[in-house]
Amino acid sequence: MEQMNILVVGGVAAGASFAARARRLSETAHITILERGPDVSFANCGLPYHIGGEIAARDALAVQTPESLKGLLNLEVRTQCEATSIDRVGKRLQIRNLRTQQSEWLSYDKLMLAPGASPIRPNWPGIDDPRIMTLRNLQDMDHLTAATETGMRAVVIGAGFIGLEMAEQLRHKGLIVHLVELQSQVFPALDAPMAALLDSELRQHEVALHLSDGVTRFESHDDFVRCHLSSGLALEADLVVLSIGVKPDSELARAAGLQLGPRGHIVVDEFQRTSDLDIYAAGDAVETADRVFADQRTVVPMGGPANRQGRVAADHVFMPDRARPYPGSLGTAIVRAFTVAAGLTGWSEKRLQAAGRPYQTVTVNDSHHASYYPGAKPLTLKILWDPDSGRLLGAQASGFEGIDKRLDVLATAILAGMTVEDLCHLELAYAPPFGAAKDIVNLAGFAACNRRDGLVVHTSELPDDPQVQVVDVRGKPLADAFPVPGHPINIPFPALRASLDKLDRTRPVVTVCAFGKMSYFAARVLAQHGFDVTSFSGGLKANIDPRTPAKLPSA
Amino acid sequence: MEQMNILVVGGVAAGASFAARARRLSETAHITILERGPDVSFANCGLPYHIGGEIAARDALAVQTPESLKGLLNLEVRTQCEATSIDRVGKRLQIRNLRTQQSEWLSYDKLMLAPGASPIRPNWPGIDDPRIMTLRNLQDMDHLTAATETGMRAVVIGAGFIGLEMAEQLRHKGLIVHLVELQSQVFPALDAPMAALLDSELRQHEVALHLSDGVTRFESHDDFVRCHLSSGLALEADLVVLSIGVKPDSELARAAGLQLGPRGHIVVDEFQRTSDLDIYAAGDAVETADRVFADQRTVVPMGGPANRQGRVAADHVFMPDRARPYPGSLGTAIVRAFTVAAGLTGWSEKRLQAAGRPYQTVTVNDSHHASYYPGAKPLTLKILWDPDSGRLLGAQASGFEGIDKRLDVLATAILAGMTVEDLCHLELAYAPPFGAAKDIVNLAGFAACNRRDGLVVHTSELPDDPQVQVVDVRGKPLADAFPVPGHPINIPFPALRASLDKLDRTRPVVTVCAFGKMSYFAARVLAQHGFDVTSFSGGLKANIDPRTPAKLPSA
Repeated sequence: MEQMNILVVGGVAAGASFAARARRLSETAHITILERGPDVSFANCGLPYHIGGEIAARDALAVQTPESLKGLLNLEVRTQCEATSIDRVGKRLQIRNLRTQQSEWLSYDKLMLAPGASPIRPNWPGIDDPRIMTLRNLQDMDHLTAATETGMRAVVIGAGFIGLEMAEQLRHKGLIVHLVELQSQVFPALDAPMAALLDSELRQHEVALHLSDGVTRFESHDDFVRCHLSSGLALEADLVVLSIGVKPDSELARAAGLQLGPRGHIVVDEFQRTSDLDIYAAGDAVETADRVFADQRTVVPMGGPANRQGRVAADHVFMPDRARPYPGSLGTAIVRAFTVAAGLTGWSEKRLQAAGRPYQTVTVNDSHHASYYPGAKPLTLKILWDPDSGRLLGAQASGFEGIDKRLDVLATAILAGMTVEDLCHLELAYAPPFGAAKDIVNLAGFAACNRRDGLVVHTSELPDDPQVQVVDVRGKPLADAFPVPGHPINIPFPALRASLDKLDRTRPVVTVCAFGKMSYFAARVLAQHGFDVTSFSGGLKANIDPRTPAKLPSA
Repeated sequence: MEQMNILVVGGVAAGASFAARARRLSETAHITILERGPDVSFANCGLPYHIGGEIAARDALAVQTPESLKGLLNLEVRTQCEATSIDRVGKRLQIRNLRTQQSEWLSYDKLMLAPGASPIRPNWPGIDDPRIMTLRNLQDMDHLTAATETGMRAVVIGAGFIGLEMAEQLRHKGLIVHLVELQSQVFPALDAPMAALLDSELRQHEVALHLSDGVTRFESHDDFVRCHLSSGLALEADLVVLSIGVKPDSELARAAGLQLGPRGHIVVDEFQRTSDLDIYAAGDAVETADRVFADQRTVVPMGGPANRQGRVAADHVFMPDRARPYPGSLGTAIVRAFTVAAGLTGWSEKRLQAAGRPYQTVTVNDSHHASYYPGAKPLTLKILWDPDSGRLLGAQASGFEGIDKRLDVLATAILAGMTVEDLCHLELAYAPPFGAAKDIVNLAGFAACNRRDGLVVHTSELPDDPQVQVVDVRGKPLADAFPVPGHPINIPFPALRASLDKLDRTRPVVTVCAFGKMSYFAARVLAQHGFDVTSFSGGLKANIDPRTPAKLPSA
């Protein structure tokens, strides 16, 4: 393996991780990174925060330079250098220097493709206006930053991760922000109820939301771009951020005849090898195994998987006997907008439904730490599991504090193949400033087991059928102030056992409360008294208005 | 099961959880809680925070009252009522009303013992002075609170959880605080280097630490108690907090002939049954299976296990066909002192050593979220694993933010039987405000795998042998300002490849840096150039001065 020649196309997350690990494993290899842009190894996840001013110094995002990579890792880095063609038989890569436009061929023993993914820029009328921008690299960031310094009106198209972060940061900077989303909710990867708090938070911070709406065309004027929406609305903007998703930069791979997936991603094996075993690929341009369902392939264009894939590939090149496979991607993600955080791991309910896979789910509410300790904030957790085995399939969390922690615990649990029964007995770190003796993750396990054990039947929808008795077990003041739709019967829980004669035993009952806990208690009482009863999962908070000023039930 | 008679001795965590779950499962059972103290179901973990004033309202800690438990759960609660004797043959419990001193016998079908554990109060000379207090319940809290309102000088004996929390809270309230600990470190459950930051934080907040020191006797004076220490020091105190551990309140069980463990804890099976199958026990008074080593028994006197044990027992009483066993306790714990948090899960290095069990360990340092995002704080993580299987055995974390999150992830990983290889591919929630593309948990997995793959040899001690070349690869300013003890050779890492001739290839090398990352890089370079090289694990930060003002290595 002396003097092995390694070429790396793309020098950001996957490419830079691959090269760094390669050098750790071989001092003698020639390792060259070819990067189309002017920068390598920059912190692409931080771009929105510099535009908004939260990360003040641009230098903070330029993690490494060609010079630092030479000094630390003895890597050769060629920026503004595009890979244009692969000669697989001759094991050569053609590159073009974008400054001089000169081309040359470089030989490789192993080639790593880490080209990433580009923001989608559809062929909408008027889209070529330079004020309609995307955000991928430091140059895009600089253009957007400049635009925010002269413009006041921003339209953000797409309410996924980048769209939400940009909406927040542009508001942070004082701009007027419209956020347009084709789906009927923000953060479309979440199930709709779990995105409700984020929706409310954005509106509270005066982000104008336009849901179930999309751009039909742009109209360029001297002083603004007019964005015409399918609803008929027209928004005037000084700058437009287009953040409707990314597509893999797999043209080089396609032209070389490497196998691509149905959406154009490079297909790799568990060691990140493409269909040409001397060519590896990693990062946003590849599809991998899905870690929830082994028979599925998935695409998770995020920094964590990219970094780890690069590392796996380098291990396989330099120590194939000890390299461990990339186990696939799970799709753990989180976004913050103002004071709210929300995220998911594994499969969502809508994705399970669309795939026709069986699942069960519960939603629970609690405080992020002991409710009696100052500063406790409400949070909501939803879990999904396989009805047969109890194995966790996915989880979502939304709230103000401790969202990342619960997602991380649940991601770990899913990766370990844990069941909802296992969640009951997670022994998590507890002192009043940090958690609760029964953490919300335990509570989710309890609720799921109650369902599995037949102790309670859950519904996630209030009944339409007037035959069904809706019993609101909240206190009267709350029941009056934030009434359940329809014709609920208010029986505060402590009065329930003495009030059974107010209910008709021959008609079904749905119990309702603020957070889903008291309605479960009530359902247990009624079930044991012979009622046909269903509990409204997650309570009104999770389903109607996430900011209902209801007191948390005492623990 | 109609009209089953259930008696519960003890109405705090385990007893209250048992009773609540029992009622959820049976509307018809007679359930009576017998509590020696005047309060039930109070938040015992919150007691120090009310003394310090952080939890302002005393009512916040009185989670439930006998009246609320009657209303919500139809429980009969008798406070100030002591269980004095069990007639196992007649299935009767003798109780004494502590107000009237009258005794009576109550019948049971099932009896739950949840008596808890009492603070240890050794037979030291002078210990009966009422100014020497312990902290178990609201009355103790009230006494201590009153004492802090007249006294100014506090001595806290024992630097475990309660001792550390009390030291913090008493300083918070402005008292002069001495903290005395028999061990040579604070938080003795941790391995010593992981407690160093906590030590430094306490001193910074003017808690006078007296380590490796203990009380020999107390001397009562009108205006103060004098605490004589084995070092010869004498401390004058207006109040003394005794927090040197707890012992199980298992006298009732012992007198009834129930099986006890070696340290007096009630022995239970996986459904919390004692050696009498109609008598269950749960909480601080019991010993359970250990979740790391199935052949071990353990005692974890904390709220989380207590609550979950109570629940398991109730399930077993009322639905034995569906009850799932209590899987044992892991011993996850966290403590905060001022701005620092530290904790552990599973087994520590000292515990593994004492038990003669094989293990390997690494310590890693990183930021709690992306280092380029404002507010990133350093944290240190130590993991321990089985050398054969790679299975995780324990973890410890110390730092300012995100400590609870990493402990929770690692507790989940340990409970799932994950290996260090699995840690590499945990896919955790990442956006710049929440984490990093490679979280410190992933980094710990990488470091452990590097060690398992033979890529690096770690040491946790600087060499004494003058034959060994200690190579400090930090920048010269840092190396000069915070020198490595002995005679290090300073070669900043970027200069290393060009400076190999400064080193003697015939003599071993130990590489040293601030955080353990650059020393690993250096060890890889040197190993590939034929050196016999060892990397100083965790760097100088984790081993010498946790507040060394060293720049974090760029990610």
